[in-house]
Amino acid sequence: MTPATVKALTFDVFGTVVDWRGTLIREGQAFGAARGLQVDWARFADAWRAGYRPAMDRVRRGELPWQNLDALHRMILEELLVSFGLTGLSEADKEALNRVWHRLDPWPDAVEGLTRLRRRYIVATLSNGNVALLTNMAKHAGLPWDCILSAELARHYKPDPEVYRTAAALLGLRPQEVMMVAAHKDDLRAAQAVGFQAAFVPRPLEYGPQRAVDTAPDPAFEVHALDFIDLAEKLGA
Amino acid sequence: MTPATVKALTFDVFGTVVDWRGTLIREGQAFGAARGLQVDWARFADAWRAGYRPAMDRVRRGELPWQNLDALHRMILEELLVSFGLTGLSEADKEALNRVWHRLDPWPDAVEGLTRLRRRYIVATLSNGNVALLTNMAKHAGLPWDCILSAELARHYKPDPEVYRTAAALLGLRPQEVMMVAAHKDDLRAAQAVGFQAAFVPRPLEYGPQRAVDTAPDPAFEVHALDFIDLAEKLGA
Repeated sequence: MTPATVKALTFDVFGTVVDWRGTLIREGQAFGAARGLQVDWARFADAWRAGYRPAMDRVRRGELPWQNLDALHRMILEELLVSFGLTGLSEADKEALNRVWHRLDPWPDAVEGLTRLRRRYIVATLSNGNVALLTNMAKHAGLPWDCILSAELARHYKPDPEVYRTAAALLGLRPQEVMMVAAHKDDLRAAQAVGFQAAFVPRPLEYGPQRAVDTAPDPAFEVHALDFIDLAEKLGA
Repeated sequence: MTPATVKALTFDVFGTVVDWRGTLIREGQAFGAARGLQVDWARFADAWRAGYRPAMDRVRRGELPWQNLDALHRMILEELLVSFGLTGLSEADKEALNRVWHRLDPWPDAVEGLTRLRRRYIVATLSNGNVALLTNMAKHAGLPWDCILSAELARHYKPDPEVYRTAAALLGLRPQEVMMVAAHKDDLRAAQAVGFQAAFVPRPLEYGPQRAVDTAPDPAFEVHALDFIDLAEKLGA
């Protein structure tokens, strides 16, 4: 089961390592309660996340110049504040809200699983989140990364191949020596296209209990694990 | 004493965090003994390090295309093997020798000091070493970095200003919110020139007991510390 050549594991972060939706809802509720705002924070969180792919795609197509995910989150937030009728927020409040992405909470198995995996492998992020966001999140959540790698270092967003190639080059490894770990099949397929191995760890609750998620095993991926502890078992760590 | 605005500390690594000379000598002796080689490993270590600045400067002046420190170390090593009469080494042996730079041992205070500093600040490398080298070294030495930053991410070598500017941008901080920590005054001056604060931690034994090192306090630097534990004290961590 263990692909013997793997030296480093690179992890998708939003949805795979951390529960962005649950955290945004909790933080939104606290933010709103402190300011007397009436907002459906689940809808707000889903709308914020829904704006992410189209915004990135505008950068990927060259319609927008390179900008990191903090900037894209803020751009989407500005539109959401209008559509949710929250136009009275101060600059400091907007920035505080945008920074919630820097302190997302991990899935319950994430820290324990990463701690085990780290004994045997280099464990690194490989996220569309920017370096500062990922660094602050790791400190907040106690995620024991060996190295913070980000789309920002390639100035391309996943699933562009440059992101995966840059990560392998920075790790000083051949792509076959790196395994991408993600809850999203498109991320894994793009990593495999440049030579990475792939571990699929579905996160059925990523979009909340109401929305179905593709959790079906796919034999194209070298490893299928239920969570990071199962992944550590399957990778001999 | 604590500059209240500091949020992240970026560390020079070779000489400041790790004892490159002592490790190269020890590893060289073991390497030589296993192969029956007669080499003055202290001279070898000093010659290897002496080749570093001129090689980097050729990249900085554009005489050589960008290449990371592993590649520069290897280029210098090829010349040393000739001048030390070690031309019979296999490719695997040369690569093993070059990889010694990935597992340098820390100064005795480094891990404890960084562990304390990390409670209060983001602690990151900011080295001319490449990302893979710094990541492997951290794993070897137990250095608890929040983030691996490197000249490689700017494709410029220190003391070029691009290295420091890129680091602050990746941390999402203004230069004034970052403090460079180094045993080398030129590194600190270059960091200050782009707006960083500076902590001088002299390492009198960097070049061995025979060679004098500039350890004189300089009032231009915000902090002067005897080692990383003293630095933690002085920065309230």
